[in-house]
Amino acid sequence: MIKIAIIGATGYSGQELLRLLLGHSEAKIKYLASKRYVGQKINDIYKSLEGANLNGAEVCVEEDIEKFSKDCDVIFLALPSGFASKLITEEVLKNTKVIDLGADFRFKNINVYKEWYKIEHFGEDLLSEAVYGLPEINREAIKKARLIANPGCYSTCSILSLAPFVKANTIDTSSIVINACSGTSGAGRGLATSALFCEVNENFKAYKIASHRHTPEIEQVLGLDVPLTFTPHLLPVNRGILTTIYADLRFDIEIDKLKEIAQDFYKSEQFVRIMEGDGSAEIRWVRGTNYFDMNIFKDSRTNKLIITSALDNLIKGAGGQAIQNMNLMFGLEENTGLNNMGVFP
Amino acid sequence: MIKIAIIGATGYSGQELLRLLLGHSEAKIKYLASKRYVGQKINDIYKSLEGANLNGAEVCVEEDIEKFSKDCDVIFLALPSGFASKLITEEVLKNTKVIDLGADFRFKNINVYKEWYKIEHFGEDLLSEAVYGLPEINREAIKKARLIANPGCYSTCSILSLAPFVKANTIDTSSIVINACSGTSGAGRGLATSALFCEVNENFKAYKIASHRHTPEIEQVLGLDVPLTFTPHLLPVNRGILTTIYADLRFDIEIDKLKEIAQDFYKSEQFVRIMEGDGSAEIRWVRGTNYFDMNIFKDSRTNKLIITSALDNLIKGAGGQAIQNMNLMFGLEENTGLNNMGVFP
Amino acid sequence: MIKIAIIGATGYSGQELLRLLLGHSEAKIKYLASKRYVGQKINDIYKSLEGANLNGAEVCVEEDIEKFSKDCDVIFLALPSGFASKLITEEVLKNTKVIDLGADFRFKNINVYKEWYKIEHFGEDLLSEAVYGLPEINREAIKKARLIANPGCYSTCSILSLAPFVKANTIDTSSIVINACSGTSGAGRGLATSALFCEVNENFKAYKIASHRHTPEIEQVLGLDVPLTFTPHLLPVNRGILTTIYADLRFDIEIDKLKEIAQDFYKSEQFVRIMEGDGSAEIRWVRGTNYFDMNIFKDSRTNKLIITSALDNLIKGAGGQAIQNMNLMFGLEENTGLNNMGVFP
Amino acid sequence: MIKIAIIGATGYSGQELLRLLLGHSEAKIKYLASKRYVGQKINDIYKSLEGANLNGAEVCVEEDIEKFSKDCDVIFLALPSGFASKLITEEVLKNTKVIDLGADFRFKNINVYKEWYKIEHFGEDLLSEAVYGLPEINREAIKKARLIANPGCYSTCSILSLAPFVKANTIDTSSIVINACSGTSGAGRGLATSALFCEVNENFKAYKIASHRHTPEIEQVLGLDVPLTFTPHLLPVNRGILTTIYADLRFDIEIDKLKEIAQDFYKSEQFVRIMEGDGSAEIRWVRGTNYFDMNIFKDSRTNKLIITSALDNLIKGAGGQAIQNMNLMFGLEENTGLNNMGVFP
Repeated sequence: MIKIAIIGATGYSGQELLRLLLGHSEAKIKYLASKRYVGQKINDIYKSLEGANLNGAEVCVEEDIEKFSKDCDVIFLALPSGFASKLITEEVLKNTKVIDLGADFRFKNINVYKEWYKIEHFGEDLLSEAVYGLPEINREAIKKARLIANPGCYSTCSILSLAPFVKANTIDTSSIVINACSGTSGAGRGLATSALFCEVNENFKAYKIASHRHTPEIEQVLGLDVPLTFTPHLLPVNRGILTTIYADLRFDIEIDKLKEIAQDFYKSEQFVRIMEGDGSAEIRWVRGTNYFDMNIFKDSRTNKLIITSALDNLIKGAGGQAIQNMNLMFGLEENTGLNNMGVFP
Repeated sequence: MIKIAIIGATGYSGQELLRLLLGHSEAKIKYLASKRYVGQKINDIYKSLEGANLNGAEVCVEEDIEKFSKDCDVIFLALPSGFASKLITEEVLKNTKVIDLGADFRFKNINVYKEWYKIEHFGEDLLSEAVYGLPEINREAIKKARLIANPGCYSTCSILSLAPFVKANTIDTSSIVINACSGTSGAGRGLATSALFCEVNENFKAYKIASHRHTPEIEQVLGLDVPLTFTPHLLPVNRGILTTIYADLRFDIEIDKLKEIAQDFYKSEQFVRIMEGDGSAEIRWVRGTNYFDMNIFKDSRTNKLIITSALDNLIKGAGGQAIQNMNLMFGLEENTGLNNMGVFP
Repeated sequence: MIKIAIIGATGYSGQELLRLLLGHSEAKIKYLASKRYVGQKINDIYKSLEGANLNGAEVCVEEDIEKFSKDCDVIFLALPSGFASKLITEEVLKNTKVIDLGADFRFKNINVYKEWYKIEHFGEDLLSEAVYGLPEINREAIKKARLIANPGCYSTCSILSLAPFVKANTIDTSSIVINACSGTSGAGRGLATSALFCEVNENFKAYKIASHRHTPEIEQVLGLDVPLTFTPHLLPVNRGILTTIYADLRFDIEIDKLKEIAQDFYKSEQFVRIMEGDGSAEIRWVRGTNYFDMNIFKDSRTNKLIITSALDNLIKGAGGQAIQNMNLMFGLEENTGLNNMGVFP
Repeated sequence: MIKIAIIGATGYSGQELLRLLLGHSEAKIKYLASKRYVGQKINDIYKSLEGANLNGAEVCVEEDIEKFSKDCDVIFLALPSGFASKLITEEVLKNTKVIDLGADFRFKNINVYKEWYKIEHFGEDLLSEAVYGLPEINREAIKKARLIANPGCYSTCSILSLAPFVKANTIDTSSIVINACSGTSGAGRGLATSALFCEVNENFKAYKIASHRHTPEIEQVLGLDVPLTFTPHLLPVNRGILTTIYADLRFDIEIDKLKEIAQDFYKSEQFVRIMEGDGSAEIRWVRGTNYFDMNIFKDSRTNKLIITSALDNLIKGAGGQAIQNMNLMFGLEENTGLNNMGVFP
């Protein structure tokens, strides 16, 4: 059994990671650490977890990464930006593997991090070692990694959509527009007037226009040498991301050929579903799963590639992908604990 | 492996039963039968199921219960009222076990069925054999049954709430009021103006006041000799039932004692969670699970027992309970395939 | 023109009152007072109000009830409990009329207030003068009042439902159960984890079981000498209240006769709609209006009266009713500014 | 008083138009025509309208445009494509004015209509006379028109967003991408599995990618000589459209200057609100109003103009705009009956 600590277990991502690990045949939870709820039982905070078999790990403890690193095979961090870079050290990594669901170790160039996150970074020396944990792009490196930077939710959806076409050099990368829409759990469980039910329900809006932090992450992983436009929006749903992506085609190419490029690129990937037919990807089909769905369209009048793609932001966009990484790091079947089909309706 | 046919696989209940069976270690799907979608792949109808391992059973076939009964160990029926009583015969039951998610075999007295359902019944001879499939009440009979009448969703929630107090003779049974609220999936996938998004969203209403068919089912299973009042309501959510139940206490009794009655009654039940503290049961904590949550209150000013209880209408109220019954019938661990914790948010 | 101040203009009730007054032909806003937003423009806080003609009153000011009382014909207060009893004095009432949307002046017996609200009351001397502002029950007193205690949202819905039957002595008042469900705007705009979108959406729960403060208000206004049971629930909708009410009939009586009792009682009331046919009241039909809808049912098996009733908690349950009171106090047509039909869907 | 007939009064657009006209000081409803509900009272179909003063026009009648044209000053048509072109004739227009909320008279080039709508057109001779009823663009022509083609909902939002920048020649028109999202009422009240509550709620998807009929309408009215890309999406809300629009800037230009271009263009428009600050337009601020909200952004890294804009699809996108047109045609104040502020929350 893999012994596990989760630091930041009581946020939406942390508790979903925990839920998924409870269904994982090789996982054994040792510690749940929380800032806000030390001393409380996780099933009092999330009553959905009442009855879970936690064998003594149910009470939230204070973060103590050194101790965790000695007692655990892997530590997951689900923290706001800036905290992980303080906690993760060479010392810790000598003892255990680490999967960070935050942004602190996603950037190779520390200046990009500083510019977009406006906070200091305390673990610069580990940046080069950290592996960007997107298995469909980076599988072999993940298997050997000690430190995984788990991708952002929007980033996962955007990168997986575009990677086949960037690689095949099908599109003009300077023309990429990513219109992305996320369910409200993506904003976390913090208190804000803008997150109240009456403000989100029956509403829809864009936010952080031309300034969202996932922008440079997408550009880096796709290896772009030109910037792209990324616009996030807030959906009145709990879970799910849908991106609609636009890019100019570099030459005339049939829709079947475009679809083939994606199918070939992902032909061995069990969590990528290239949709048949001409329907859009939809949030409802991926809810509760680790799947990434996409479909491909061509606007013949404007010679544009259009992609719609969807994932569950708390699973393939966070905890599920983290487990997929863990599975790779520990030599397990990649889909262990991730076999659930979509919960619909 | 248990070989399985589902007749009525493409309704909301049928597809959820299928999803749960796909995660069941001993289940093997042989046939998916549908009236509306013969010849179509289930993953084209519900794209949430794309990628599921169905080994040739993915194409919906026409119902052929005789053939199914020869090839399968168990047949699930998820059909509108009146269909099961035509299909299920002694012949079929000689070959296979049957779990009917509909109402046709729930009533011991055929006249009650006829009065409330206003349709003919074609299997009167099997009524006495059929076992009402509520494991917490009827476990031993279920284990030996050939034919299970799986309870109604509202009925499960209402009966499990009241059973401890009826048995303990704590309440005046002539005073019971069940105020029940269900998510819209309870109404099925049929077309009706009243089921359109714009009619349900931002709305709330009662329906079938003093005339809902689950009323006599609850009365029968609780063994009441007086009628009760049951009022269903339609919630603008996909899944979940919450019932708020009122009954006059027969004598003065402390809240702790009331809680104890329920705790004792369910002390060995893994799918019943009597809540600690003084919070209401909530739909969000049971979504995606086979749990039934309840909490108990006393209105001291009026000497009334108040119960709030919740379940997922498609799982403990339908497909999950059907699997719980199957597990019992086949000598498996009762929770096989039903261990998921609640999907939140 | 009636010169108006609103104290507490930036809560959900306050801003809705303001919106309605902006469409009132005789209303002129002089002051908007807010604790949290002093110095900010109301249309920056609620951009729905951008473009409203506020003639210099758009910037929120600090509460100064003495000054307001000299400059205004009427002051509306939309404040948390306990604040109004400090602000409203004989001094103020000599200068102006006051309509308090809070609970401070609703109770004739100060001890009931203290017991249920657990706070001190600073205006005991004005309690006897204050008029409970439910026009359908109290119209003549309202016309002459200086100080109106505007009813609670749940209370309005419950009292209007039961009043005809209590007066006609049709029901056993000791058997009344009010099962009430409110949209989330009823909880106000304050920050709480339980009010976040992801916690309310796809959820449903009861709260404050057997202890909600509207209970004694309903009992007082109905003139009951026995307690009733009242259970509030939180609906995942922005606006609207639906109550389902149960009471034992005192004798055998036809449904038509029951309906007639209500129709007679409300025959001159323009904001009360007794529904035809056998459908439930529904939140969707009253959204955006000052209407109170109700329908009446009989459960013949248990000889119970069942009432379903609905109103918009921010209008007939708050700001609309306050304006209805104002219209009466100033000799205007009672429906001035309140003629909107329901905004559907 | 303006005597009015509505043909197609029982769809979502028709009933909303009716609701707005009931609050219009100069409007008098003479006929409500419906295909599906002949002989039924409108307030039985939409109980939100119970109590409305319809003076004998409450019962839905069969369409009889000749008769209506003799008895009415204006006829509104809210019908599926293809019906209006049959009904509206020179004969009718000699008697009365006509405002068609459908698409039949929006195109100057009949071939565009035939290509995108795939139906025949029976009123080709009137196409050149019909005036596109977007007051902010076409006010003077509307005042003199006999026949108005009321714009599509998406089209209104898109055209008003882009018009200032197309006119000022600020953007490369060959680069325009319109990402548009609409509430479900935009799909009408017809029965379809895809419109059921459980299919729309907690979902989000694109549809009719690169093939939606509003595309050529937007291109025509903006006077573009190159095609643009338009992608509609379905939001799980009842009302509202949000568009996020992208276009390459033709030269380097400051954001303040961009905002100024829009402010100047709309400086006399009372229903256009250019937002201050850097927040996105949001659906919640326009719900229930005739306002069109927009804000303007610059993505400096990619030198793109980004616009977010919002309107209520049933008001500024349908019935409200139709009334705005009527007001102009009859010499009334343009905002008569359209002064409501946004209904929030």
